[in-house]
Amino acid sequence: MDKEENKKPIEISELGEFGLIDHLTKDLTVIDKNLIKGIGDDCAVFECGDICNLVTTDLLVEGVHFNLIYTPLKHLGYKAVAVNLSDIYAMNGTPKYITVSIAISRKFSVAAMEQLYEGIKLACDRFDVELIGGDTTSSLSGLFINITAIGQAKKEDIAYRSGAKKNDLICVSGDLGGAYMGLKVLEREAKLYMDDKDTQPELEGYEYVIERQLKPEPRRDIVRELAKRGIVPNSMIDISDGLSSELLHICKESGVGCRVYEEKIPVHEQTEYVSNKFRLDPSLAAMNGGEDYELLFTVPLDKKDIVESMNDVAIIGYVCDAKDGGKFVAKNGVELELKAQGWNAFNK
Amino acid sequence: MDKEENKKPIEISELGEFGLIDHLTKDLTVIDKNLIKGIGDDCAVFECGDICNLVTTDLLVEGVHFNLIYTPLKHLGYKAVAVNLSDIYAMNGTPKYITVSIAISRKFSVAAMEQLYEGIKLACDRFDVELIGGDTTSSLSGLFINITAIGQAKKEDIAYRSGAKKNDLICVSGDLGGAYMGLKVLEREAKLYMDDKDTQPELEGYEYVIERQLKPEPRRDIVRELAKRGIVPNSMIDISDGLSSELLHICKESGVGCRVYEEKIPVHEQTEYVSNKFRLDPSLAAMNGGEDYELLFTVPLDKKDIVESMNDVAIIGYVCDAKDGGKFVAKNGVELELKAQGWNAFNK
Repeated sequence: MDKEENKKPIEISELGEFGLIDHLTKDLTVIDKNLIKGIGDDCAVFECGDICNLVTTDLLVEGVHFNLIYTPLKHLGYKAVAVNLSDIYAMNGTPKYITVSIAISRKFSVAAMEQLYEGIKLACDRFDVELIGGDTTSSLSGLFINITAIGQAKKEDIAYRSGAKKNDLICVSGDLGGAYMGLKVLEREAKLYMDDKDTQPELEGYEYVIERQLKPEPRRDIVRELAKRGIVPNSMIDISDGLSSELLHICKESGVGCRVYEEKIPVHEQTEYVSNKFRLDPSLAAMNGGEDYELLFTVPLDKKDIVESMNDVAIIGYVCDAKDGGKFVAKNGVELELKAQGWNAFNK
Repeated sequence: MDKEENKKPIEISELGEFGLIDHLTKDLTVIDKNLIKGIGDDCAVFECGDICNLVTTDLLVEGVHFNLIYTPLKHLGYKAVAVNLSDIYAMNGTPKYITVSIAISRKFSVAAMEQLYEGIKLACDRFDVELIGGDTTSSLSGLFINITAIGQAKKEDIAYRSGAKKNDLICVSGDLGGAYMGLKVLEREAKLYMDDKDTQPELEGYEYVIERQLKPEPRRDIVRELAKRGIVPNSMIDISDGLSSELLHICKESGVGCRVYEEKIPVHEQTEYVSNKFRLDPSLAAMNGGEDYELLFTVPLDKKDIVESMNDVAIIGYVCDAKDGGKFVAKNGVELELKAQGWNAFNK
């Protein structure tokens, strides 16, 4: 082994986001008896009397997570809240409160901040969430939004990533890959605009995928519907980095394997249409695209009839033994190993 | 009135941080019955069974809040946690959990992040706080740290900004102005270093004020001591923006006035020494410097003997009628109007 190479400092891009977090937090020990779950799920969970509080936080960075050329500030505010609420729903909880921290450079006016807050408040209103605090400061360049959301759930209702059992049915809400294709359309139009400022964006026929990218809706309806039908999922996660990545999270945390079928994965017709125009495989967009903020969950086999009767929920596969690995069964019957190729902020 | 001028968009620097927050959040209405306090104190407060949860968040931006030329990353991590814990103590609560969001540019290595986390964990260990989650992502330039802290308190123990009563004694912990003078020393040395990279910083004799700037200690000891002596302050706030600014917060929120005496304000001898070297009035550093993270609180007059017997607590004045305003009584007996001249991230 080359000694010099051993000494080279580790670069963050080598570890990636999850690797870096694992590395930095590996020696944390839990001492608080009310802390049920710390780092490693959609939310942290701490007990408080009869209720559990769920906590999650997300940082959005201009130029990394969003491009203000094609992102209206109101949409950005809405989305910044939505992605956090999605994490609370992914624990089968109810979001209650958010804090909003914003750093802004000199290029932003009060009117711009008003638009951003309009979106934040719209999301709060729609999902009955209270904005309870925050911090507002300046940045040397660009816009940064950090939102922390706090939700609640009864202890017995919480769905962790770690609860999937062998033979569980794997379900997803809505359809996948749309947000990624919306991003592709917006990036293309932004590039054309940057090359020629007189150009008008051509967005007709792309409305659905663009809305999926700019204004994702956290799936409170699914969580409520599951509760109404008496189902607490054995495991649940929201799809922010792509279906492959989230499936592998559930498999790893639950100590299981899985088998999902390409033909069962819900893809919107416009996602298919746009994928074809961009010469991309729609299934690849669904598996690795990310930002759909749909729910991925597993339920015991005996709940099959119930989930089949639910609107906007598809059964896409089943949970198997860990030793059988995570498999994607293509339409032609070929089995492929699942790989997390989702979005990574630290990619070079 | 000039019509054109009326139309000019409002600039953020005109409003300042507090003005901007007021402006953006003025139409928020509280609907959640468990939410006791939303925006406007050191923490938000929501009830949860027999306990109240306290929530606060702070965003630190490289180039705005800290300069990495003279801020060791370990200290920065510690301070980022400390300033949030200080907000929890300022409500008379006990911090329990934090989330940490970080955005980093390519210039940072894994080793740099390890140092930052070393400081974060040190603060967590020292104050029995659990790191329960976060988000780690990239930025196009600079380092951003957003920490959200959650603490707890019994409802009857919480000290708001709004509880000060006429004739209350006004008390502060520790000494003031040191953190500001530490910043002045560090900025001077950084400038000398930038002008000549071979220069060695001269920090001898400045250790105390530099430590005040780089490694503020949240005053858990004071909160514990007050509890031990059976005192729940009528009002409390931590001193992050300078004594003047915090006094005015308490006066405004409590609907009272105040009178504080220059001769009573605790200033460390090194703060005085450094102020003199910089030809600054030490009292000005104490009143407007900020970042001391000491506690400012008011107690009923009949607790005088008790607070007088406490270590590291000084009585600096008393609460009066709102109509008598907020006054600073100088050593020469002259009364000056209190003005919030504290630090503002949006100053041009």
